[in-house]
Amino acid sequence: MSHSSRDQTINLGAGPCTLPTSVLEIASQGLLNYDGTGMGLIELSHRSKTFQNLNLDTQNDLRSLLGVPENFEILFMQGGGLLQFSCAVMNLLNRFRLDRRTKPEDVVRADYLITGSWSAKAAAEATRLGCLVNVVADSRHFSSDSKSFTSIPDPKSWKLSHADQPSSAPAFLFYCDNETVNGVEMASPGFPISSLPQFYQDVPLVADMSSNILSRKIPYDLWKRLGIVFAGAQKNMGPSGLTIAIVRQDLIIDLDQALPYGGLRVPAMLSYKNMAEHQSLYNTPPMFSIYVSGLVFKDLLKKGGIEQIEQINYAKAKILYQVIDGSQGFYVNNIQSSARSRMNVVFRCQGGVSVEEKFIAEAEKIGIKQVKGHRSVGGIRASLYNAVTLENVNSLCKFMLEFKASNGSNL
Amino acid sequence: MSHSSRDQTINLGAGPCTLPTSVLEIASQGLLNYDGTGMGLIELSHRSKTFQNLNLDTQNDLRSLLGVPENFEILFMQGGGLLQFSCAVMNLLNRFRLDRRTKPEDVVRADYLITGSWSAKAAAEATRLGCLVNVVADSRHFSSDSKSFTSIPDPKSWKLSHADQPSSAPAFLFYCDNETVNGVEMASPGFPISSLPQFYQDVPLVADMSSNILSRKIPYDLWKRLGIVFAGAQKNMGPSGLTIAIVRQDLIIDLDQALPYGGLRVPAMLSYKNMAEHQSLYNTPPMFSIYVSGLVFKDLLKKGGIEQIEQINYAKAKILYQVIDGSQGFYVNNIQSSARSRMNVVFRCQGGVSVEEKFIAEAEKIGIKQVKGHRSVGGIRASLYNAVTLENVNSLCKFMLEFKASNGSNL
Repeated sequence: MSHSSRDQTINLGAGPCTLPTSVLEIASQGLLNYDGTGMGLIELSHRSKTFQNLNLDTQNDLRSLLGVPENFEILFMQGGGLLQFSCAVMNLLNRFRLDRRTKPEDVVRADYLITGSWSAKAAAEATRLGCLVNVVADSRHFSSDSKSFTSIPDPKSWKLSHADQPSSAPAFLFYCDNETVNGVEMASPGFPISSLPQFYQDVPLVADMSSNILSRKIPYDLWKRLGIVFAGAQKNMGPSGLTIAIVRQDLIIDLDQALPYGGLRVPAMLSYKNMAEHQSLYNTPPMFSIYVSGLVFKDLLKKGGIEQIEQINYAKAKILYQVIDGSQGFYVNNIQSSARSRMNVVFRCQGGVSVEEKFIAEAEKIGIKQVKGHRSVGGIRASLYNAVTLENVNSLCKFMLEFKASNGSNL
Repeated sequence: MSHSSRDQTINLGAGPCTLPTSVLEIASQGLLNYDGTGMGLIELSHRSKTFQNLNLDTQNDLRSLLGVPENFEILFMQGGGLLQFSCAVMNLLNRFRLDRRTKPEDVVRADYLITGSWSAKAAAEATRLGCLVNVVADSRHFSSDSKSFTSIPDPKSWKLSHADQPSSAPAFLFYCDNETVNGVEMASPGFPISSLPQFYQDVPLVADMSSNILSRKIPYDLWKRLGIVFAGAQKNMGPSGLTIAIVRQDLIIDLDQALPYGGLRVPAMLSYKNMAEHQSLYNTPPMFSIYVSGLVFKDLLKKGGIEQIEQINYAKAKILYQVIDGSQGFYVNNIQSSARSRMNVVFRCQGGVSVEEKFIAEAEKIGIKQVKGHRSVGGIRASLYNAVTLENVNSLCKFMLEFKASNGSNL
């Protein structure tokens, strides 16, 4: 295999994905000797003052970057977004049962907005765990082929549960802010959550922000509606293995208290209460992932915080979509324009799979890597996470224009 | 803070703990550019051929090191030993219910051997999850103060469930092969499991080997009795964040099939079946922890495998216990001699806490670090994991003799 250098590589992977080189350089030192301790970061006790400070610092930096209100706990967990699909459901179902003193035989419902493969998976998991899932809207029903996720359905079409009627109130509403596989994103954070009706006011929102967290501000108005935000670290934060859950304090309960009301038995490690009470050091946490994420947070703060990166992210997506839309149909992205993801730009090439394979191979040759679309949908996917620079995207655009010039006319 | 160099530091932490410097040097390169890809290991897609090969390689190396029989799956999970406490229970209770077609109202029991704080925690978690825990023996009842864990109770005293009677058969027997906090270890792997009676033959054993896995061979005779072995990576394997579960194939079932028989609802990420079917890539795994563990496995294979390290580990523990026992009571370890841990050597100093604090401070000054006992028990703990060399232990012994010489006579 030929040897590629790091500075000649543009990594557009969908996650795990590229991280700032300067951060990785610091981490590679810290791996051998952290902060002059004579020990690597991963060799320290997680109960040492050194690590406890790093842990709290990292939580505080994340709070400051995202403007997390004081009535939310920031938890460092494990298992990825998939385990949070279960964890959020288990915690919120039990909380709902305790709150409403349900009969054990009562079924508890939750609302799911399905806009891509991750929210669909989340809904399936909730059903497995005994939740009555009410699909608020499924964007497949609004696509031309009835099976693609290409939009955020108009909130006027949403079939919300009647939160004002005790018998049909939902424990929460789940949505995915950015669908990594399908390239579909809420136009603004939580959009169109702001247009939810008055009777739905007290339903906590559960937001999967795995693939767009830290890419744009979360406005305070949205925080007021949110119950849980979660995200795997491996896109805009750091190495896989760490999962962030930001949970509103009033939703954090002793889960076992819900057992008489039909609550689920929940593993101790999945209890938000256990995690919150121990500043996420309930047992040995994924220390290296926390460490590197902390370095990414500090790097982002130094570069001007979310305000700054948000502008860059909009600019990056804009020039790439312009190339796609200006290609006279050679590159095709058929996502509703207001729902196009700034993080994961998916497109097909005129000429189909063989041209796409050629695209991927030629891109690889000049150092543009990991642009193959998700195996479930095919095509091309360029992921433009925080650590991808505007220059990187310009290089991609240049390549795309050249590739079109040499392949477009032959069709 | 003064700056310590790595080669002047002897890290005797109980975990996370020291790892081989040569391994960390490779990892610090791989963090920036893995195998000439131009991308760091944690920036690769977990679905890439590169990472999939590494993942399978690492599983195979572990299989070869531990002599894991073909009828066991090696799973790379997350959440540490604590989550395995829940995960093993949930999987095995549901499996037992499906197997026996229990009535939903039937209670399922499991046997727990309690020899330290980790097995006690495991039993508490099983109870929380609705399991009827039968304590086979609790070593606290055999200690002089009735509250310390200082032995492995004689199997003749064990109160095993009647596995031959359908109404009282246990789903499994849980034990902890090495108790990290208390410094208590089975004299040989799984001892005294070999003396279990004939009627108990088919009960699968669940072994927590978090803190002594890879430190000695697991004989084939023990594998024949084992159902599940699990271990957090952060002692003899690699960075925290990875948890290994080695599970016998016939115990791996579709958990939802047990629901009609009173089975628990189990998060998808905690299903051994989901993990086994996807070679542990059910979602994004803790890639860096897998990578570094893989490097540790290769390092161990190169150094002669378990046979070699096992001899060194016995030698290390032997010289340290000799210093303790030869100290005329200045250093005290009151663990039953056949149950003394080779991994975590705990001791108290004559003179009590103030002398112990002085010991820890003076050790720290000459670069011997992380020897403070667990906060729940106090005292000193020197952990002698695989990456601690015989020379390191000699240095510790030398320091202990000197410390005794200057502090023993003043009392």
